Amino acid sequence: MVCFVKARDLVQDLPTVGPDDDALTAARLIADRGLPGIAVVDEVGHPVAVLPAADVLRFVVPGYAQEDPSLARVLDEACADVSAHDALHGMRVRQLLSPIRHRVELPAVDPDATVVECAAVMARLHSPLVAVVDDGSLVGIVTAPHMLERLLAADSASTNGNGA
Amino acid sequence: MVCFVKARDLVQDLPTVGPDDDALTAARLIADRGLPGIAVVDEVGHPVAVLPAADVLRFVVPGYAQEDPSLARVLDEACADVSAHDALHGMRVRQLLSPIRHRVELPAVDPDATVVECAAVMARLHSPLVAVVDDGSLVGIVTAPHMLERLLAADSASTNGNGA
Repeated sequence: MVCFVKARDLVQDLPTVGPDDDALTAARLIADRGLPGIAVVDEVGHPVAVLPAADVLRFVVPGYAQEDPSLARVLDEACADVSAHDALHGMRVRQLLSPIRHRVELPAVDPDATVVECAAVMARLHSPLVAVVDDGSLVGIVTAPHMLERLLAADSASTNGNGA
Repeated sequence: MVCFVKARDLVQDLPTVGPDDDALTAARLIADRGLPGIAVVDEVGHPVAVLPAADVLRFVVPGYAQEDPSLARVLDEACADVSAHDALHGMRVRQLLSPIRHRVELPAVDPDATVVECAAVMARLHSPLVAVVDDGSLVGIVTAPHMLERLLAADSASTNGNGA
């Protein structure tokens, strides 16, 4: 049983970025912390989007190489200018947010959301993380592996290992 | 520049599961290692699918709760039987693989794939990890945050901090 555990109890202390932050900063935070993605929060603390790590990679890879993997190989073997710094240098986080990500629903729950609600939002939106939002402002982030960890730990505590 | 770095140089030593393994084992591996997902490999070492952490959560949450978040709250507040152990107990990994995930292309590259090809596959399939496969057999896994880390590290080495 994991009743009475709320989203506010699950939040992790994870970094966020602003839409006008340097894209390279976002990439470095994801890389250094091994995050599945990062929340984008505006200047008044309102979450704007969740930026998955794979979406950042899209900008390091030229668009035509994404469409045609054989071009990706030619490009790389010719030792063309494939540099994460060069690709992201001068870009802002807002430019990494795809129009599709903007159109889809933000994976967010309120602080009183139950474990079941958090899991339902992640599962429905196929998002590796969910933003916990109180009256429009970001409270924190919960990632899918952390959710699973908490759900399994809660079970172990309540069942004393029963069901293993 | 990140030329000449191949997929085989990027693989991480991450656990895998088989389609007939206990679903709870897969959930525990994802939770304990903080993984964005896990590769499913058959008995002869051929990768079958990539199972994202969010997809495991789907099975911990009753289907009707996913469709209607208000039901999720009622369910949880009524302290109904929401247990990760109970939900996954007796299930096999193959039952966690959605028909949709089976139909979509496996995010995979060969060991000689370039960094650009790896990133292109992840970006195109919106996958947090890619399987490196040699002649049908799994060589290892590369996650999106690890890719970003390697791309940024390679840049730093070749530019001595230029572009920061």
